[in-house]
Amino acid sequence: MQDQITPGNLLRTMRANPPLVQCITNFVAMNIAANVMLAAGASPAMVHAEEEAGEFAAISGALTINIGTLSAGWLRGMLKAAQSANNAGKPWVLDPVAHYATAFRRDAITRLLELKPTIIRGNASEIIALAGGTSRGQGVDSRDAVEQAEDSALQLAEKHSCVVAVTGVTDFVTDGQKAKRIAGGSPLMPQVTALGCSLTCLVGAFAAVAPDDPFHATITALTVFAVAGQQAGAAAEGPGSFSWRFLDALAALTPETLDRDARISAA
Amino acid sequence: MQDQITPGNLLRTMRANPPLVQCITNFVAMNIAANVMLAAGASPAMVHAEEEAGEFAAISGALTINIGTLSAGWLRGMLKAAQSANNAGKPWVLDPVAHYATAFRRDAITRLLELKPTIIRGNASEIIALAGGTSRGQGVDSRDAVEQAEDSALQLAEKHSCVVAVTGVTDFVTDGQKAKRIAGGSPLMPQVTALGCSLTCLVGAFAAVAPDDPFHATITALTVFAVAGQQAGAAAEGPGSFSWRFLDALAALTPETLDRDARISAA
Amino acid sequence: MQDQITPGNLLRTMRANPPLVQCITNFVAMNIAANVMLAAGASPAMVHAEEEAGEFAAISGALTINIGTLSAGWLRGMLKAAQSANNAGKPWVLDPVAHYATAFRRDAITRLLELKPTIIRGNASEIIALAGGTSRGQGVDSRDAVEQAEDSALQLAEKHSCVVAVTGVTDFVTDGQKAKRIAGGSPLMPQVTALGCSLTCLVGAFAAVAPDDPFHATITALTVFAVAGQQAGAAAEGPGSFSWRFLDALAALTPETLDRDARISAA
Repeated sequence: MQDQITPGNLLRTMRANPPLVQCITNFVAMNIAANVMLAAGASPAMVHAEEEAGEFAAISGALTINIGTLSAGWLRGMLKAAQSANNAGKPWVLDPVAHYATAFRRDAITRLLELKPTIIRGNASEIIALAGGTSRGQGVDSRDAVEQAEDSALQLAEKHSCVVAVTGVTDFVTDGQKAKRIAGGSPLMPQVTALGCSLTCLVGAFAAVAPDDPFHATITALTVFAVAGQQAGAAAEGPGSFSWRFLDALAALTPETLDRDARISAA
Repeated sequence: MQDQITPGNLLRTMRANPPLVQCITNFVAMNIAANVMLAAGASPAMVHAEEEAGEFAAISGALTINIGTLSAGWLRGMLKAAQSANNAGKPWVLDPVAHYATAFRRDAITRLLELKPTIIRGNASEIIALAGGTSRGQGVDSRDAVEQAEDSALQLAEKHSCVVAVTGVTDFVTDGQKAKRIAGGSPLMPQVTALGCSLTCLVGAFAAVAPDDPFHATITALTVFAVAGQQAGAAAEGPGSFSWRFLDALAALTPETLDRDARISAA
Repeated sequence: MQDQITPGNLLRTMRANPPLVQCITNFVAMNIAANVMLAAGASPAMVHAEEEAGEFAAISGALTINIGTLSAGWLRGMLKAAQSANNAGKPWVLDPVAHYATAFRRDAITRLLELKPTIIRGNASEIIALAGGTSRGQGVDSRDAVEQAEDSALQLAEKHSCVVAVTGVTDFVTDGQKAKRIAGGSPLMPQVTALGCSLTCLVGAFAAVAPDDPFHATITALTVFAVAGQQAGAAAEGPGSFSWRFLDALAALTPETLDRDARISAA
């Protein structure tokens, strides 16, 4: 039974040997993402400079790239890191924050996609736009529902041979063939900044734990957020108290509770 | 009654249609500022790079610029964004953090002022120095009282045809003609870093909601902070518990409570 | 009695006249480090750009440099700031985050060490590697115990004529001659990101208060963390609730409690 691929088993494996994950993320997310990783049981390293991002990706278990507060210098570091992850056979996760908003972002995301991310995680507006559809997105917050992005996710996954996760009220994950939905979380989560960015980092952590199975790695990370988010939401009085309760819930989450409370369904 | 310009009515309008606000702020403030914006009901986007800051300002409802952790590259992005906001007729807010501290900052603030901010928000030391007076400021914390900065605020507002807000124990807001004082908040607020920077972002949010009335937009943002700050302060045991209680209070704040507890007086 | 050098007396002196401390730290640590400084009673200023870092160091009481999210531009600012601190006779503190991880970091730390830090604070893996030993470090988290780094700390302190602090379960501080151990804190502390980086800033604050006695300044900062950390840990339910309770504990800490609960022993 222990060998079955369940979220609980992957969490157990991660905690037994915390993976080193290189997280190139935005300035808003840096602190909460690192805290999420530590609480869940991973070892994050925020290393972005072009002088070292590639070298570091080769020694990391996985790489995550988020273009939230993009600049030219950071993009150079991202490209080097993704190239290096590819060369070293390490999985890498792309978070295309508001990639549709400006010409600079549209160009950046095109170049990053060429480096074949293992997994893409975004909100519905981002995934729709990434697949070439017309999203209602404008800034960084999604203005579309996950359901509206499912076809886009399938197309993206097939086109780029990667796993695609659309997160929102109920998450959707696909590798272009099979697909799952993950329910849970809390309505307070969109009121806390950078939780989606933090989730991208955690997807990277599980990808490091199960590099040959990015589909289940992604499902596991989303399930961890769904279960801990639901626990934190039940006790929180607002977005402020949600944040710290969420970190407490992540740290206290056991593999058994995770598997018991997981709400994963076929899509 | 609904049409009267009260803080409550502006808050109601904002929540009904969350404004997209481009916040170019410092690394310390990024996370708490975004959380303050989301809790209050706005949609923040931290976009700073010179490659896109101007393009993004044109699609935002308002722009805020804070020079806290300034560098040459960021200054270029700020200048492009402010220029673009002007061209697009969008309001923009300047937060002149420690502008007196170094030659680099003094030069930067001169160039930013030439781009005619709609609103300037600072602490007493910053406003006194910006008007050419002798402040006791040294680092980023104010060493002067708001009362001592009122004349400077009036001069600045008249000279630059903008609204000036001096925040502290009791805030002072003027457009060079009329002036108001806003009381409330908590003595714990200066013990929490970057709340002033976050307030600057919220001033931008209300400026996006009421672009033709930056005076009342500013008063509203300050009143939101004063009322939510007072609520959080009543329950907090220190600066750590204040932070999350403040976010909870912002999210729970209703237009009715805001107008009821507002302590705005003629100056 | 008041004149005796105890942690409580140094804390009292700091609160009576909050020192301005220039903190060049990483993006993950920025916010929590500033909050730690304010809660403890110091006045932090995050100023890093090469255009002003040197000028600002001359007016600060102390400087702290942390290479966590290093880049070429930031390194230039660090070098200018450290040089300026030396010229002005101001103490400066070096935090060599993961300095062994890449060639870029190894080169950076060599250049920073040449500028003679007054104090070095790191985890066991960092201190072992800095003394030329073989650490088990890989990312930013320590994989070695403090005890294993004590000889390295002594060597480093002697070689560079500085104070060296190794922090972990029980901290070790030496100036190459004498040495102390500081016990306390909480097992939750390594689960909260950037507390070590924040401690480096606080070491800088006490170095500004006692520039002629970096040994006791360092012991004091570590003791403040140990006592407040123990208090917060006793009430916390996880890393999320630890964070804000720690800030509350720092702000509420009195000199009397600090001296009463300090667990400093000869090494």
